[in-house]
Amino acid sequence: MNLVLLSDSDFVSDHLITIKDSRRLQHIREIHQAKLGETLKVGRINGNLGLGKIISLSDTEVQFEISLSQAPPPPLNLTLILALPRPKMLKRTLQNLATLGVKKIYLINSYRVEKSYWQTPLLTEDAITEHLHLGLEQACDTQVPQVHLIKRFKPFVEDHLTSIIAGSHALVAHPYASAPCPAQIDYALTLAIGPEGGFIPYEIDLLTNVGFTAVNLGPRIMRVETVVPFLLGRLF
Amino acid sequence: MNLVLLSDSDFVSDHLITIKDSRRLQHIREIHQAKLGETLKVGRINGNLGLGKIISLSDTEVQFEISLSQAPPPPLNLTLILALPRPKMLKRTLQNLATLGVKKIYLINSYRVEKSYWQTPLLTEDAITEHLHLGLEQACDTQVPQVHLIKRFKPFVEDHLTSIIAGSHALVAHPYASAPCPAQIDYALTLAIGPEGGFIPYEIDLLTNVGFTAVNLGPRIMRVETVVPFLLGRLF
Repeated sequence: MNLVLLSDSDFVSDHLITIKDSRRLQHIREIHQAKLGETLKVGRINGNLGLGKIISLSDTEVQFEISLSQAPPPPLNLTLILALPRPKMLKRTLQNLATLGVKKIYLINSYRVEKSYWQTPLLTEDAITEHLHLGLEQACDTQVPQVHLIKRFKPFVEDHLTSIIAGSHALVAHPYASAPCPAQIDYALTLAIGPEGGFIPYEIDLLTNVGFTAVNLGPRIMRVETVVPFLLGRLF
Repeated sequence: MNLVLLSDSDFVSDHLITIKDSRRLQHIREIHQAKLGETLKVGRINGNLGLGKIISLSDTEVQFEISLSQAPPPPLNLTLILALPRPKMLKRTLQNLATLGVKKIYLINSYRVEKSYWQTPLLTEDAITEHLHLGLEQACDTQVPQVHLIKRFKPFVEDHLTSIIAGSHALVAHPYASAPCPAQIDYALTLAIGPEGGFIPYEIDLLTNVGFTAVNLGPRIMRVETVVPFLLGRLF
């Protein structure tokens, strides 16, 4: 937690906030080992960043006097379409995406996504928000990504994707593509990443039919939690 | 396991191997659900890749008839100097590094590396090898990275690093550097990455004194398991 992320309910007034939940309280007291009078980096969800000075500290709450004048870091000019990863990886992937500055995320079904993945409690709104917040706290960002859950591949691609990709380049990472993935781009991008084992040829055909170009990432097969930062580091 | 990685002790003859250990056996039987006569991708540790055809299969062993004619993917032209991550991240980081094609790795001490991290059983030779193998099996690579453990920062930098970086560009990722990190390079690189919280100024001074250039990665603070693939995707 490099940033204490503040929600509306923490605000007593514009410059005074109280934190009572155990996760943040414990982190401030035990990891930061913060003392009365010290300042920590704070930021309001979907708002500005700044500094907070601790003006009271107890076992049950901490109060900060805050000043928020710094804009959050710029988001990536990206819409990410990601085949739903297995639950173990979903947690870290959500945190990573928030850390990396992705703001528009579609978690989609695909032939090689196991049906059981959609049953995980990590896909409740609260759990998604929690992991996005952890990623923002890591990055020192306040802008919460939007996450859409898409349980049917074909109607999503055929009926919605054309308008989602409008005005952007659209790429799909595919091990069997001949074109190499571009690097250091300066345009709006929609990027699709498949499940373990990749999209099946039928899915690649549907995606290329609506305007995606398939690009390859070289001979190494990466886990989703590796390929996401690898690709974003390469592209942006 | 996208590749069944073979050690010398698996070889009955040049074209016949037997696998008996429970990890690989279980993976082949339960994840791949492989059947008699099927072929899987196989590769010899530090040797070639190829295909293996299952010629016998039981609860206790599987035999493959193999042919190894394909060279492994090219390594990155990189020496990585990485402050020892906390144990939870070390596992995934070792796997990631092997997957990404890093072959020369120095895990080093630094002011902000907690002393307790050096006590983890993950730093035994067997544990390191296990996690490197998992990363190679993911990537379909056979070339095992070399990992060096460096418990003293200053003598390493002053007495050894000059010869390690000879013939390469040397960069250290540092949040307070003014130069941006380069991208898509075509030269040999030595890259140093600090611990959570970064190298301290004294350490940055020692590194720049022997020839490192400090470069920044933008405003977002990433975990080591995120920043490693992010940086390698950007650089190579």
